[in-house]
Amino acid sequence: MAKDRRVVRVLKGESLFPPPLWMMRQAGRYLPEYRATRERAGGFLDLCYNPDFAVEVTLQPIRRFGFDAAILFSDILVVPHALGRDLAFEEGRGPVMTPIGPDEIGQLSGEKFHVNLSPVYETVRRLRAELPAGTTLLGFCGAPWTLATYMIAGHGTPDQAPARLFAYREPEAFAKLIDLLADYSAEYLVRQIEAGADAVQIFDSWAGVLDEDCFARFCAAPVARIVARVRERFPDVPVIGFPRGAGSLYDGYRATTGVDAVGLDWSVPLSQARRLQRDGAVQGNLDPLRLVAGGAALEEGVDRILAELGDGPLVFNLGHGITPEAPVAHVEAMVRQVREARR
Amino acid sequence: MAKDRRVVRVLKGESLFPPPLWMMRQAGRYLPEYRATRERAGGFLDLCYNPDFAVEVTLQPIRRFGFDAAILFSDILVVPHALGRDLAFEEGRGPVMTPIGPDEIGQLSGEKFHVNLSPVYETVRRLRAELPAGTTLLGFCGAPWTLATYMIAGHGTPDQAPARLFAYREPEAFAKLIDLLADYSAEYLVRQIEAGADAVQIFDSWAGVLDEDCFARFCAAPVARIVARVRERFPDVPVIGFPRGAGSLYDGYRATTGVDAVGLDWSVPLSQARRLQRDGAVQGNLDPLRLVAGGAALEEGVDRILAELGDGPLVFNLGHGITPEAPVAHVEAMVRQVREARR
Repeated sequence: MAKDRRVVRVLKGESLFPPPLWMMRQAGRYLPEYRATRERAGGFLDLCYNPDFAVEVTLQPIRRFGFDAAILFSDILVVPHALGRDLAFEEGRGPVMTPIGPDEIGQLSGEKFHVNLSPVYETVRRLRAELPAGTTLLGFCGAPWTLATYMIAGHGTPDQAPARLFAYREPEAFAKLIDLLADYSAEYLVRQIEAGADAVQIFDSWAGVLDEDCFARFCAAPVARIVARVRERFPDVPVIGFPRGAGSLYDGYRATTGVDAVGLDWSVPLSQARRLQRDGAVQGNLDPLRLVAGGAALEEGVDRILAELGDGPLVFNLGHGITPEAPVAHVEAMVRQVREARR
Repeated sequence: MAKDRRVVRVLKGESLFPPPLWMMRQAGRYLPEYRATRERAGGFLDLCYNPDFAVEVTLQPIRRFGFDAAILFSDILVVPHALGRDLAFEEGRGPVMTPIGPDEIGQLSGEKFHVNLSPVYETVRRLRAELPAGTTLLGFCGAPWTLATYMIAGHGTPDQAPARLFAYREPEAFAKLIDLLADYSAEYLVRQIEAGADAVQIFDSWAGVLDEDCFARFCAAPVARIVARVRERFPDVPVIGFPRGAGSLYDGYRATTGVDAVGLDWSVPLSQARRLQRDGAVQGNLDPLRLVAGGAALEEGVDRILAELGDGPLVFNLGHGITPEAPVAHVEAMVRQVREARR
């Protein structure tokens, strides 16, 4: 069955036209039904940890737009949360955690890791049962570097300076944190696949702020470690790596990490994307603000991606999550344009 | 005389080892003498528009570290300010302007442009007279795209969404704004060169948030327009382009824009930097946080740049401005390491 899923086929290297499509953050605030469910759920974490709600919001964009993939509704920070760190989501501020110090890294405890995350696995199980047979179910996790930026700063930061400084000043403690996050993230993905995920994506949202040496050690190496561990158990399940902002370090990322497919942010030029496509699938990369603007900006953006990347293995997507301001009508227009594309 | 200035020689393509060095934002809050002058001056704009203060703070890092280049102390936003937009610098918030609307672009007035900027030209004249003969004097301006991001949002933003949306929604008004900023910026640089600047740098601090099509139209094309106009008047004065965050779009930037040298942010891998060096000088690109951290992080960072880029035309610099937290002792250590480097 999984082999009929178009997203899985492309992730494994097949070229399909029109390309399958989904959107990062497709279960999100731009949808009135999402906002209604979120209101009922209470806080954001209640949405993540309650399978009833999580299943519901994951399915909403599938029902509305018939996307080719559903992505588990959750948050990347459930991993540090499951390792014993506190976590809250404050309105207008995003995630807030107590910043971790170098001496506290040894105290991270995986004792209740899978127990804490069992609602997520339950959500995946139910989703696979409820989704249409042709719809790919994606699991995901945050990459260790990106998780570390939040754990160290205690919140989102414009340039991830706290984590970068921590890495320079406390190289041993930092390496230990990264390794530990890689190992638990790999186990987390394995459990998601056991529960029914057809493919998984590793989100390295802050990969773009590191210099070459740090990128190799903190982004590429731990993702390679995760991929290797997942592969040991599930050699045929595709892994998507998304090192957002990696710029020219996108070249080489697939080879270094072993990911099957590379998620591209919207700043990646399509000439580079074509080069990357020679070695396998790419996913992306419409500027989410073209979706907000609509009209010619949207049409031209979609056209250009289809023209440049449509001949190779492509999963059509945005270059980052859809924003709350995006009108539903623009999403409909985008889906229609991709679906009706002819070569 | 100018031909003995090491930074100018490198910008024109000569390889010198050890490379000449200076630091972006070298006249800044990490220096106690800067903080003292700023206190005397009052606000940040008083510092920019008063030649006594501006000359003083420009010279401070030259006296202390003997950098090979001094960069005019000013701010990129004096250009929209001189075109009649309001501008204030609020403590802890940075620049604040009244956001410009599509209908107001026609009202931008260059009538008093050079009168408003005459203190800047006066600062340049005095600096050239006071600087050591071997020290390169750099003028600068902001690139049109980066200026537009502040003019449209009214302040700094994490992702420049307001300007990106404006460009998508009001393409004609936006193109007009970009062209107008390019023309005045070119005139501004010409006047700085007439006043004594040996070379100029165009700062495109927010070049990294655009997709390929927008980058070509809003970053590369207007910088090409500025370079062409400056060249007409001063064919021998080197121009440095700094499209921060351009990623793989750094490749081709020199050819498209005509800049002599390319400023590299710290995320540019050194392998890419070497490739760029084949066509001319590069400038950069130490992570400013290595300077904050000091020790092994600093030494390794400096070593790697010297080892990888030292054989070609290189102006050693940071990959972005020095931060207020950087200890002066670390700057001293960096300068020593670069100066004492042997092949």
